[in-house]
Amino acid sequence: MAELSQKMKELVQPYLASIEPYDPNFTPTSINLSANENTYPVPEGVREAVDAALAATPLNRYPDPMSNDLRDELAAWHGVPREMVCAGNGGDELLYNFLLAFGGRGRTLLNCPPCFSEYAFFASLVETGVHDVWRDPKTFELDCAAVLEAAPSCDLAIVTSPNNPTGDVAPLDFIGKLCEACPGMVMVDEAYIEFADASFGAKTTAQGLIEKYSNIVILHTLSKAFGAAGARCGYVIAAPEVIDVFAAIRQIYSVNVLTQAAALAAVRARDAYAPVVAQVAAERERVKTALEALAAKGLPVEVWPSFGNFLLVRTAHATRVRERLRDEYSILVRDFSYAPGLADCLRITVGTPAENDAVLSALAVLVKEEM
Amino acid sequence: MAELSQKMKELVQPYLASIEPYDPNFTPTSINLSANENTYPVPEGVREAVDAALAATPLNRYPDPMSNDLRDELAAWHGVPREMVCAGNGGDELLYNFLLAFGGRGRTLLNCPPCFSEYAFFASLVETGVHDVWRDPKTFELDCAAVLEAAPSCDLAIVTSPNNPTGDVAPLDFIGKLCEACPGMVMVDEAYIEFADASFGAKTTAQGLIEKYSNIVILHTLSKAFGAAGARCGYVIAAPEVIDVFAAIRQIYSVNVLTQAAALAAVRARDAYAPVVAQVAAERERVKTALEALAAKGLPVEVWPSFGNFLLVRTAHATRVRERLRDEYSILVRDFSYAPGLADCLRITVGTPAENDAVLSALAVLVKEEM
Repeated sequence: MAELSQKMKELVQPYLASIEPYDPNFTPTSINLSANENTYPVPEGVREAVDAALAATPLNRYPDPMSNDLRDELAAWHGVPREMVCAGNGGDELLYNFLLAFGGRGRTLLNCPPCFSEYAFFASLVETGVHDVWRDPKTFELDCAAVLEAAPSCDLAIVTSPNNPTGDVAPLDFIGKLCEACPGMVMVDEAYIEFADASFGAKTTAQGLIEKYSNIVILHTLSKAFGAAGARCGYVIAAPEVIDVFAAIRQIYSVNVLTQAAALAAVRARDAYAPVVAQVAAERERVKTALEALAAKGLPVEVWPSFGNFLLVRTAHATRVRERLRDEYSILVRDFSYAPGLADCLRITVGTPAENDAVLSALAVLVKEEM
Repeated sequence: MAELSQKMKELVQPYLASIEPYDPNFTPTSINLSANENTYPVPEGVREAVDAALAATPLNRYPDPMSNDLRDELAAWHGVPREMVCAGNGGDELLYNFLLAFGGRGRTLLNCPPCFSEYAFFASLVETGVHDVWRDPKTFELDCAAVLEAAPSCDLAIVTSPNNPTGDVAPLDFIGKLCEACPGMVMVDEAYIEFADASFGAKTTAQGLIEKYSNIVILHTLSKAFGAAGARCGYVIAAPEVIDVFAAIRQIYSVNVLTQAAALAAVRARDAYAPVVAQVAAERERVKTALEALAAKGLPVEVWPSFGNFLLVRTAHATRVRERLRDEYSILVRDFSYAPGLADCLRITVGTPAENDAVLSALAVLVKEEM
């Protein structure tokens, strides 16, 4: 991304002149484990159902603004009324609109980095200040006491559970206390929650807190467990009055008819995704164990527990290791070395068994050579 | 759309508390001529090409942020380099981002109503003031002198050509003068330009002005001539430094993979749409002539020249006529009676010959009964 020209810097809103857009840092490779996508085959029959739904969808009419068919299916799945659901053009649109509605100039977002960098990017797009309460630099655990202390002076908060890229789940009692302490809205980004459910064998969502705390918004996406990052479909679950805000400020046709149709077919087939999600969770533990075995041999590898579809791995000369993975093995992982608090950290998406074997054997070589 | 709850009014940014979202005012009917959609059959072979492209598109990977394959096809079509094109999630996203980037608090949009109400809505979403230079109340012609006089004190401008809902084309020499007079960016919304080209038998786009005026942005959409309103794909053509601004502030995955694939297939088949567009333009003239014949018989009907796929029609008791069209004939048209400057005006999309016949014979009855 080139810097804006001098003329454009003068014409855009001053606070946007030096904006740094989100950079996925993508390079084509044989194995791409850089974006926490789902690399497993689509469950049997699901792609056929999606294609049939797409082929049956006329393109010439504007979409149903509120994606009501999809909304009803999501509502039935999550056991809430339609009025508590709003679909969006990926989680991104909903995140952005959350910040536009409840943040803005003179307001402050409570953020718990290292976490998803889009929170801070979207905050910057709508002139929202960010109060960072850093996680423990060694364990990446939330500093719950510090968050709760900061909350009363913040206007809105985002907590990620499981957190990207550190993998930990936020305790529900902490989220409840945060909802009490924060005078504004609290978003719980549960983009990876299905993998946590598969790990714990139980529902880990904060959704149950909505009844008690009307200032909570749960963010979901079909990009991860449902393997539909390309279709761009996210949704929020919240009290009806909160959903009204999302409905009021959105671009009314933001979720196109193809995405609505594909997402509906995928969500209807949700049971078919459960074995894939379970396998990803199992593979994640297998990869983690293998990485820990490298560490046990004295290699400079550290890995943290994760409840998502990825592992955060620290190694010596991570940037170099990542480049060599890409250039010598055609394997792409995400480099977080540049990110504050994540020195020498890579984030590796859990892929298929074959992909995971490839990255493990490459790492075994590279970590040794670069130590 | 319900009003926001008191609690939400207190939590959202103050300027958003009373926001009034765009309301398409949709009711299911047999014939829907309310949203300027293309109601013609998809040109032969095109839907098959679209379906094949969709079926060949994996959903699990994030989209190409800049839709480069589509961008290249659009660039080739319009005879510009890729760097002068940015695709968006419908024209809406690009309009919104235009206002976010170049408008904002303390800045003023020059607007020429009656025109597309989304301009003012998106301006309100990003706290941008709006300076309205009204069109002639009888002819709806642009008040070019007044616009050029207002331009130096405005920060950005939008001109629509052909204009929605009045149908007129903005003169290119006027657009050039506006680009000189306005210190900021000038967007020319050419959502309906293909129908104007079909009417004039020549290119009516302001694109040729970009070379001379680097502050111009041309907005296009696939929602109208290409009959793909449901797919949500718009694009802007502008100087590369302007495109950089759109690229910097957008949600990077805003255009999903299905839309990219469908849009690419449609744009590749652009020649197949030309006969449809020509037929719509011919039908528009036929409907206009028929409405003028009603007026010649002494019925209270006024219709304006249009170069889009719609006609603006004024009649006595328009709201009642529109309700009866909907309830007794199952025909939906858009009521603009409530809109300033458009008392008793309906906007009727040009449909297929059969749809146009239906609306004409219904109107012949209703206009007489309601006069």
